[in-house]
Amino acid sequence: MLSSAHVVPTSVRRAPSWICSSSRSFMDLKALLSSLNDFASLSFAESWDNVGLLVEPSPPHTVNTLFLTNDLTEEVMEEALQKKADLILSYHPPIFRPMKHITWKTWKERLVIRALENRVAIYSPHTAYDAAPQGVNSWLAKGLGTCTTRPIHPSKAPNYPTEGTHRLEFSANHSQDLDKVMSAVKGVGGVSVTSFPARCDGEEQTRVSLNCTQKALMQVLAFLSQDRQLYQKTEILSLEKPLLLHTGMGRLCTLDESVSLATMIERIKRHLKLPHLRLALGVGRTLESPVKVVALCAGSGGSVLQGVEADLYLTGEMSHHDVLDAASKGINVILCEHSNTERGFLSDLQEMLGVHLENKINIILSETDRDPLRVV
Amino acid sequence: MLSSAHVVPTSVRRAPSWICSSSRSFMDLKALLSSLNDFASLSFAESWDNVGLLVEPSPPHTVNTLFLTNDLTEEVMEEALQKKADLILSYHPPIFRPMKHITWKTWKERLVIRALENRVAIYSPHTAYDAAPQGVNSWLAKGLGTCTTRPIHPSKAPNYPTEGTHRLEFSANHSQDLDKVMSAVKGVGGVSVTSFPARCDGEEQTRVSLNCTQKALMQVLAFLSQDRQLYQKTEILSLEKPLLLHTGMGRLCTLDESVSLATMIERIKRHLKLPHLRLALGVGRTLESPVKVVALCAGSGGSVLQGVEADLYLTGEMSHHDVLDAASKGINVILCEHSNTERGFLSDLQEMLGVHLENKINIILSETDRDPLRVV
Repeated sequence: MLSSAHVVPTSVRRAPSWICSSSRSFMDLKALLSSLNDFASLSFAESWDNVGLLVEPSPPHTVNTLFLTNDLTEEVMEEALQKKADLILSYHPPIFRPMKHITWKTWKERLVIRALENRVAIYSPHTAYDAAPQGVNSWLAKGLGTCTTRPIHPSKAPNYPTEGTHRLEFSANHSQDLDKVMSAVKGVGGVSVTSFPARCDGEEQTRVSLNCTQKALMQVLAFLSQDRQLYQKTEILSLEKPLLLHTGMGRLCTLDESVSLATMIERIKRHLKLPHLRLALGVGRTLESPVKVVALCAGSGGSVLQGVEADLYLTGEMSHHDVLDAASKGINVILCEHSNTERGFLSDLQEMLGVHLENKINIILSETDRDPLRVV
Repeated sequence: MLSSAHVVPTSVRRAPSWICSSSRSFMDLKALLSSLNDFASLSFAESWDNVGLLVEPSPPHTVNTLFLTNDLTEEVMEEALQKKADLILSYHPPIFRPMKHITWKTWKERLVIRALENRVAIYSPHTAYDAAPQGVNSWLAKGLGTCTTRPIHPSKAPNYPTEGTHRLEFSANHSQDLDKVMSAVKGVGGVSVTSFPARCDGEEQTRVSLNCTQKALMQVLAFLSQDRQLYQKTEILSLEKPLLLHTGMGRLCTLDESVSLATMIERIKRHLKLPHLRLALGVGRTLESPVKVVALCAGSGGSVLQGVEADLYLTGEMSHHDVLDAASKGINVILCEHSNTERGFLSDLQEMLGVHLENKINIILSETDRDPLRVV
């Protein structure tokens, strides 16, 4: 979640600008946002998502009270205003479908109006927290029992391990003026060159390999293309960003000890503090069937869990046809309502953020935030 | 513009709720908006447009000062705030591309923040005022000299002249139980029936014709389809909304007396109070060429003027290729910069709205609003 290593960050970068006052201190919104991004990079959010700072009062804006909620309903907004929140962190983005007007007609527009009229900023991490190593999905997995987990769809690292985005390779034989080539290539900025002797088609040659930026690539190629023979043996490779071990969408959890489906149901109820769950038995399964591998995805898991092999799918909501699909393959499905598979994470988050922000600001949890659906 | 008849509305419907105070009185925003809609119905706006109330402070909101501007730049917003505007009428909609966040990053988002933090509403009529009988285009035409004008693309009336959206007709001969049919049809709500004797293929019949709503149409058809013979002679016609004489996009202006292009240029400069215009001479034309028919469109006229036959196109901006197209057909083109063909209308609007709102509120014109482009 924080750095991609572990729960409690040993080396917590000091937030640059905060102001000390009696009760607690304030943080400037910009500094707090950059600290939140260190905590879990928004670059891990899905491309379709709408994350980050969504509503901003005119700067400067200082934050004394950070208010956490899973969903920002109008009821939760009023609670936040009563509790003098300066920044609301809403896991779900209150603005998702773009707005063409901000009037009193719809509740999402009213949220923006209430926030700006009361100088409250709104920030939403959403799928960045799903993907993060110690994020929502990892918290959800904690309820299954000791197990090893890996992301079902690993994220790519935000950056390349090395410099440059491309690798360019070509061979030069001794008839070609290698020195001229090498000095020209080295003259291009953003290029690191390696050369080594090579035997190619029985002929002694020098293999030249260089990493370079997109811009440098075009300049080197422009130079090489002046020598047809050289150019025809030039290979362009694109460097890949590595996939991350602990960051990505969904989690595949392999229990150390398999348990019966009935036992797993109780564990999940206890972890999520829910009296009821919705269960679809896989074809040929019973409550006594063993569960060893659980594929989970907080919220709406249909697409993330699609085609994953497991004894059990655990998510918040899933369409009728996806449930039929899973059951037909003998996979049990447990549905807990969308936000019930997310909200519990916020207390972990409150603690982690407290440490990460060195308790500089108040961090409070919404008491009115809850899933709209209940079993009756 | 007002009712589609004429400039000064004789029968001005009294705005329902206004509160009197010493300097001027206030109007409730809702009442003012409905009065503005009477003034020029937003239904005349183009489907791609984004008109009406775009930003609304939490209700109730009373308006004492209405601030008019063509474009709402940040400079104009600061002017509006200094002048204590309660409602900004911006001809161009400040929100056009939908917004996924309202932060300090872009100027259009800042406008929303500044407006809501200072309880200022923003309303935009845009192409509804282009189309309106005494709107922007009619004002622009006033500068040409006495002429008759008609919309280039007339608008449809907002409503049907008669009740219902469809006409349904069928013939019943004497073998069919006409009374049963008629009573059944009359039993359906939203239907007005006419029947008359008719001779069809040499046979005496009764022709039944009824106007009905979409809903009633389905019920009548369901009934008629029980009698195959009857059903096969049933015709369904859709009623059309009439095109309006004085409302629509662009204007085709036929001068009573044709004048030289040079004279027309001077008239337009005087009307728009501009020292310079941009002129493209039609192929084979000179400044002495006669101008009898002018096709005009305030703002960006390329698509509205496309293919229109005239001696002169007058608009704010037009793409290079559209100008070449027009010139190739011998059509002169005068470009004045986009908003210079719109802004002058606002002083007419100030006057008309003063009358329409019975001078209940202050109506002021922006002094900093201007086109970003100048000839140097």
